[in-house]
Amino acid sequence: MSGSINKRVLLARRPEGLPKPSDFRLEEVTIPAPKEGELLLRILFLSLDPYMRGRMDAGESYAAPVEIGEVMDGGTVAEVVVSRHKDFVKGEILLSYSGWQSYALSDGQGLRKLDPAAAPVSTALGVLGMPGFTAYAGLLTIGRPKPGETVVVAAASGAVGSAVGQIAKIKGARAVGIAGGLAKCAFVLENLGFDAAIDRRAPDFARRLKEACPKGIDIYFENVGGAVWDAVFPLLNDFARIPVCGLIADYNMSAPFPGPDRLPVVMDQVLTKSLTIRGFIQREFADQRPAFYSEMSQWIRGGRLRYREDVVDGLDNAPDAFIGLLQGRNFGKLVVRVL
Amino acid sequence: MSGSINKRVLLARRPEGLPKPSDFRLEEVTIPAPKEGELLLRILFLSLDPYMRGRMDAGESYAAPVEIGEVMDGGTVAEVVVSRHKDFVKGEILLSYSGWQSYALSDGQGLRKLDPAAAPVSTALGVLGMPGFTAYAGLLTIGRPKPGETVVVAAASGAVGSAVGQIAKIKGARAVGIAGGLAKCAFVLENLGFDAAIDRRAPDFARRLKEACPKGIDIYFENVGGAVWDAVFPLLNDFARIPVCGLIADYNMSAPFPGPDRLPVVMDQVLTKSLTIRGFIQREFADQRPAFYSEMSQWIRGGRLRYREDVVDGLDNAPDAFIGLLQGRNFGKLVVRVL
Repeated sequence: MSGSINKRVLLARRPEGLPKPSDFRLEEVTIPAPKEGELLLRILFLSLDPYMRGRMDAGESYAAPVEIGEVMDGGTVAEVVVSRHKDFVKGEILLSYSGWQSYALSDGQGLRKLDPAAAPVSTALGVLGMPGFTAYAGLLTIGRPKPGETVVVAAASGAVGSAVGQIAKIKGARAVGIAGGLAKCAFVLENLGFDAAIDRRAPDFARRLKEACPKGIDIYFENVGGAVWDAVFPLLNDFARIPVCGLIADYNMSAPFPGPDRLPVVMDQVLTKSLTIRGFIQREFADQRPAFYSEMSQWIRGGRLRYREDVVDGLDNAPDAFIGLLQGRNFGKLVVRVL
Repeated sequence: MSGSINKRVLLARRPEGLPKPSDFRLEEVTIPAPKEGELLLRILFLSLDPYMRGRMDAGESYAAPVEIGEVMDGGTVAEVVVSRHKDFVKGEILLSYSGWQSYALSDGQGLRKLDPAAAPVSTALGVLGMPGFTAYAGLLTIGRPKPGETVVVAAASGAVGSAVGQIAKIKGARAVGIAGGLAKCAFVLENLGFDAAIDRRAPDFARRLKEACPKGIDIYFENVGGAVWDAVFPLLNDFARIPVCGLIADYNMSAPFPGPDRLPVVMDQVLTKSLTIRGFIQREFADQRPAFYSEMSQWIRGGRLRYREDVVDGLDNAPDAFIGLLQGRNFGKLVVRVL
C-alpha cells in the first residue's frame, strides 16, 4: 500500500524507435476525491500490451495518442475504494481503463464487474480480456480456420499468440507457433499443444518454418511484423488469410525504409494467390464478446485452452517491463501487480 | 475469310517487361477436321485482356503459362462451322476459350451458347463476360459499396473500370474514375456518369484525386497497380476495402524493385485503418454468374450501364493491339474482329 499517494507513470517524451526509460516519468500526487456520481478505484493489475507503443506516437493511429505529460493509457483491474455512484459498491472488482497509476476516478462509464470466484481477476486483462478476444475474433472471423488447414502465429507464448494457436487446434487446424528462444518454444509445444514451434532466433529459421508447414500456410495471424513476414510470405497457399492485429517489430522502426521495395511482390502474390490481408482492432467485433466469454471460459475449464501470465510487481517497474515486451523478453501475458 | 487457312498467333519468346511484336509469331496452318464428338469453330471475336501478360511468363500464376510455340490463350466468340457433337448445330454462336486463332476444334466442354438477338455477341467478352463479371463480383462481394461511400477505380474507360464505377453509382456510392488523357476522362464523366474523372497523366494528379475525394476513399478497386496506388493509398478511410484484380503496370516491371520499401507503411496503415486488401479471380465467385447475367442485362437495357468497345480488325493486328492495351492506348473494351 502506498498510503495516500497516487503513483502515476506519465509519457515524458515521444520515443524514437524502441522506447527508453527516460521517455517515461514517475509522479506522485495526492489521491483524488470522488464527487457525487463518481468512484475512487484502487488499481490491482495493469495490462501491458504492444499497442501502447502506437499511443506514444503523435501520428495518426486507431486511437488518440497519449499527450506529453499525460498518464499512459492502459487496461486495468481495480477495486472500488469509495463509491458515490448508485451502480457500484465498495469492494467490487472491476475491469476499467484507468492507465498506468495506482488510483483513479471513474464516472462509471465503460466499467465491467468481474466475478473473482469465476476466474483469477487478472485474466480479464489476458485470456478473457482484450488479447484473448483479439485472438478469438481475428482468427474466427477473418482467418476462418478449416479442419486440416495450417495456422501460423508468432509471439506464440504471448497473450494473443497462445490463444490463436489453441483455438486453431480446437477448430481442427494444425497450429505452428513462432517464439523467441528454446524455453518459449518448449512451452508452446508441450504446454499449449501446438503441432510445431519454431525459434525465430535460429539461423535457419526460414528453412525450419518451411519444414514445419509441409502443406503451406492457410492462415498467418500477423501480430509481430518484421522479419517473420519474410519467412512466412512465400509459404502462403492460394486463398490464404492474414488477419493483422499488431506489428511489434515495425512499431520501433523509423521511416524511410531502405529498399528493395517489397510491395510489388506482395501485391503480385495477393493477386496471384487470391490472398486476403485484413487489419483489425478487436472492438470492431464487439457483438461477438458474449460468445467469446462463454466459449473461452468453457475451453479453459475443460483444459483445452491454457494461458500463462508474466507478473511484474510494482508500478515503478512498468516502463522496463514494457520495453522488454517490445523486445520479446516477457514470457506469457505481461501484467503489473500495481500495489 | 481466309479460305482453308487457320491463322494463329503463337508465343515466340517470353517477354521482359513490356512485350515486343517479336515476342509473338504468326503462323498459318491447315484448318483441322473435327472427329466424332467434336466441333469446328470459326472465331469471330477475340478478347484482349491484361491478364494475358501474366500467362506469357514462366513464373507461378493463377493459371498455367502459355508455353513457347503455343497459341496464345484467350476468350473468343465463335460460330459453329461443322458439328459432330450432339449438343451443337452449325451456325450457333458460342462463347469459347479458343485463343488467338481463326479456327479451333472443341470437344464441347466449357462452351456457352449466345443469343445474338439479346445483345451484340461481342459483349460476351466484355460487359456481359469476364471483365464485367470481374467488376460485378469484386465490387459487390469484396468492396460492398454502401450509399454515400466513395469508390475509386483506374482504367475507368476500360472493360472492368467502366462497369465498376457504374455499378457503384447504381448502389448509391460516389464513383471517381482515373483514366489516361482528356478524351477518356470526358467519356467517363459524360457518357458513363461518374461523379469525377481524373487524368492520371496530369502533373498534379495526386492533388486532383484528393480534391475529387473530399470524404476520402472507401473502396479502391485495384486493376492497374503502379503509380496510381501511391496517390490513392493516403486517401483511404478506416475500414476501406481494396479488391485486387489486376496490376497492369506491375506486369511489365522486372524485379528487384528499388527502395524505399513501401511495405512497412502499407502494413502499418492496414493495421491502423483496419484495411482489407483482397486479391481475387472472378471464377472464385462462379455461383454469382446467373445473378450477374440477369442484373447486368437489366441495367444495360434500362440505360443504367453503358459500355464501349474498341474493335481492332484482323488477327495480324492482335499483338500490336495487346501491347497498346498494356500501355493504355485502347479506349473501351478491346476486342479483335478475327475474320
